[in-house]
Amino acid sequence: MAQHQDGDSRPDVARLSIGIFGGTGDEGRGLARRFAMAGHRVIIGSRSTERATAAAAACGRGLGVTGAENADAADQADIVIVAVPWEGHGELLAALAGGLSGKIVVDCVNPLGFDAHGAYALQVREGSAAQQAAALLPQSRVVGAFHHVSSVLLLDPEVAEVNMDVLVLGDDREATSLVQALAARIPGMRGIYAGRLRNCGQVEALTANLVAINRRYKAHAGLRVTDV
Amino acid sequence: MAQHQDGDSRPDVARLSIGIFGGTGDEGRGLARRFAMAGHRVIIGSRSTERATAAAAACGRGLGVTGAENADAADQADIVIVAVPWEGHGELLAALAGGLSGKIVVDCVNPLGFDAHGAYALQVREGSAAQQAAALLPQSRVVGAFHHVSSVLLLDPEVAEVNMDVLVLGDDREATSLVQALAARIPGMRGIYAGRLRNCGQVEALTANLVAINRRYKAHAGLRVTDV
Repeated sequence: MAQHQDGDSRPDVARLSIGIFGGTGDEGRGLARRFAMAGHRVIIGSRSTERATAAAAACGRGLGVTGAENADAADQADIVIVAVPWEGHGELLAALAGGLSGKIVVDCVNPLGFDAHGAYALQVREGSAAQQAAALLPQSRVVGAFHHVSSVLLLDPEVAEVNMDVLVLGDDREATSLVQALAARIPGMRGIYAGRLRNCGQVEALTANLVAINRRYKAHAGLRVTDV
Repeated sequence: MAQHQDGDSRPDVARLSIGIFGGTGDEGRGLARRFAMAGHRVIIGSRSTERATAAAAACGRGLGVTGAENADAADQADIVIVAVPWEGHGELLAALAGGLSGKIVVDCVNPLGFDAHGAYALQVREGSAAQQAAALLPQSRVVGAFHHVSSVLLLDPEVAEVNMDVLVLGDDREATSLVQALAARIPGMRGIYAGRLRNCGQVEALTANLVAINRRYKAHAGLRVTDV
């Protein structure tokens, strides 16, 4: 695969420590595992230290993932990934705004509903989960990314490469470039800049389409961007 | 590329005639050209027969594309593609509802706004252009598709294969399967079922992200669905 050229020198992110709110869920735990495998120090955050520690242990021996209460995870991390359920997303971020001040916060939350016909996008007053985060965290640098990554693939020990592109959205070029570089730490993945935060709602909502594709084709679908 | 398996026998669409509303625009003309190259009879529709005829001639010699007023194009076609600007989309479809009765109508309209920061998704009362079409055409079988196809690639005589997947959305399985097969008539393209019409809004809106990608990477970006 050709390296993409976007005019940035690729920032060196290899030493960044990563906190993951909602790291006890499949998506957060999957990202924790892959970033730890890539050599990052990873701290799983949860409301309960006990559950965070258990999830960290479940990431696998020797990876060195630790668990902590969310506020402590934020303190210890250079960058924080938010992978909590949409319910409680706003409340959690509002409570932790102080500790997230000055940090890059990567929101990968998809506001979806489910019924007999499958998944559908929920209306979000702010336009998207990422824009809600940006409104609640005015002192943080909010980036949207990792919305479409299959937790099944992330957690599967047989899957060596996660072959998909991660769409990265944000209004702060340095922050989006850094998150693009972070995505590229997972073998097979590229981080592709895909617009400003105001265009994040449809990226989150598109997860409902991937759910439909997975159901129809019995797949773990992801996206690749062509010609980039 | 592996053929996808989705449990359908691929319908035979080789003999379908295709009407294209808005075939005087780049997107419509590009699709007209590619479908004519694939052997389809194509009728470009416009409010003006004269402009339709001129656009048909511009598709290239020997392709046999013809032009007609929209209502006549609908009459002559087995299937109609709607590639008009979002402004006037509803008005046009409401006026032509009778002639579209019983037909498959493929909506590829993207409701976008543009400002100094680039493209952004417009709010649509019905949820999406395709859902607006479905509301206005209760006797037609509305499918959403071809939203992300670059008109530059479609119109470029040097481009032999248009390497991307077309997301196909709709509530009528026979109609979506047929449009999937139609997409596959263009070399390089696959038609991938991507959910019901209620999930079409984010697919239309995602075109704003592709505009941002094209601007950043100087590309003509499209999507491929992985693992399908």
